[in-house]
Amino acid sequence: MEVLEAIKSGKSASKFKPTPVPEQKVQAVFNAARLAPSAENLQPWKFILVTDEDVKRRVAAALTNAKRLPEAPILIVACARLDEAVATVGGYMNSYPVDVGRALSHVSLAATSEGLGTSWVFAFSEEKVRAALRIPEDAKVVGLSPLGFPDGFDPPEGRKHLSEILSYNGYE
Amino acid sequence: MEVLEAIKSGKSASKFKPTPVPEQKVQAVFNAARLAPSAENLQPWKFILVTDEDVKRRVAAALTNAKRLPEAPILIVACARLDEAVATVGGYMNSYPVDVGRALSHVSLAATSEGLGTSWVFAFSEEKVRAALRIPEDAKVVGLSPLGFPDGFDPPEGRKHLSEILSYNGYE
Repeated sequence: MEVLEAIKSGKSASKFKPTPVPEQKVQAVFNAARLAPSAENLQPWKFILVTDEDVKRRVAAALTNAKRLPEAPILIVACARLDEAVATVGGYMNSYPVDVGRALSHVSLAATSEGLGTSWVFAFSEEKVRAALRIPEDAKVVGLSPLGFPDGFDPPEGRKHLSEILSYNGYE
Repeated sequence: MEVLEAIKSGKSASKFKPTPVPEQKVQAVFNAARLAPSAENLQPWKFILVTDEDVKRRVAAALTNAKRLPEAPILIVACARLDEAVATVGGYMNSYPVDVGRALSHVSLAATSEGLGTSWVFAFSEEKVRAALRIPEDAKVVGLSPLGFPDGFDPPEGRKHLSEILSYNGYE
C-alpha cells in the first residue's frame, strides 16, 4: 500500500475479527516499529504483546472511564525505557514520548498496509498496567492498542485545515 | 512509494540541494501531518516553515553543541499547543509529545515518498527558538528539521533486534 494512501485510510478500528494474526504480519508490523528513528538513535521502545486472555483482562481493567478496548487477538502495550532516552529535548523534556510516538505511527501504518487495524488509547492508569505486566520502575507506559483484522471502524474524525497548522517564518 | 519501503529507506538526509521545494510537495507533506491521529483527536501540532534566510540563521543559532542543521530551502519547526492536548496520558503525562511524534513520522514518511528528505534535531534551546519565531508561552517547541531534496544521507544507523523490543504477556 502507498504511504499517502495508508495515511489517508488509517482510521481507528472499532471492532476486530477473532481471526488470529499470522506471525509474519506481527513481524512486519514490529519490524516497522523497530526501524523508527529516535533521538540519538537510542530506540527507547519496548512493546509487550498481550495474547493471554487473563492478562488481557487485567490490563483492560487499567483503562480510565468506562471506555473499553475493542477485543482483538493481540493487545499492544507500548512502553519506553527511561535509561535509553535523551533527557533534554529542547532543553526541557525527555525524548521518550516523541520517540515512542514515532514508533506508534510506524506500527499503525504498517498494520494498515498489512490489512490489520489499531486503535490507540491513552486514558489508562499506568500504575495498574505496570502491576499487571510486571513493568519495572525505570520504564514508562505510553499507550495501548488492540491489533487484529478490523471488522469495523470509528466514524471519520475531522481534521483542522492546513492553514490552521501551518505558518511561515513565525508562529501564527 | 510503498509504506514498508518508505519505512525501510527513510534515512536522515545529511545534505540538501538548493532546489526549491514545489508548493505541491509541501502541501502533500503537511497534509500527511494534518491527518495524523492524536489523543482525543485534538491535533495539538503547529508547524512553522522557515524560508527566510535571516530567520533561518537565528533559529539555527538555537542549536546546542556545535552540531548544525544541514542547509535546506525549508527549515521545519514543529510546535505543540498546550491548550489543545490531553493532560493525563497514563495518568501522568501530557499527550503533546506523543501526538507531535506521530505527526513527525507522517511528515518524514510523506517526504520520503515525495523524494524529499528530513533530519530531525532535538538538541536545541527552546527559549532561543521561541524568541526567534515569536512563539507564545502556551506553545512548546518539539523538534526541528530541514526539508528539501536530499543530496546525501547519514550512514545507516543500527537498530535493535526484534527480540530486544518485543515480549509476550509481560515486560522482559
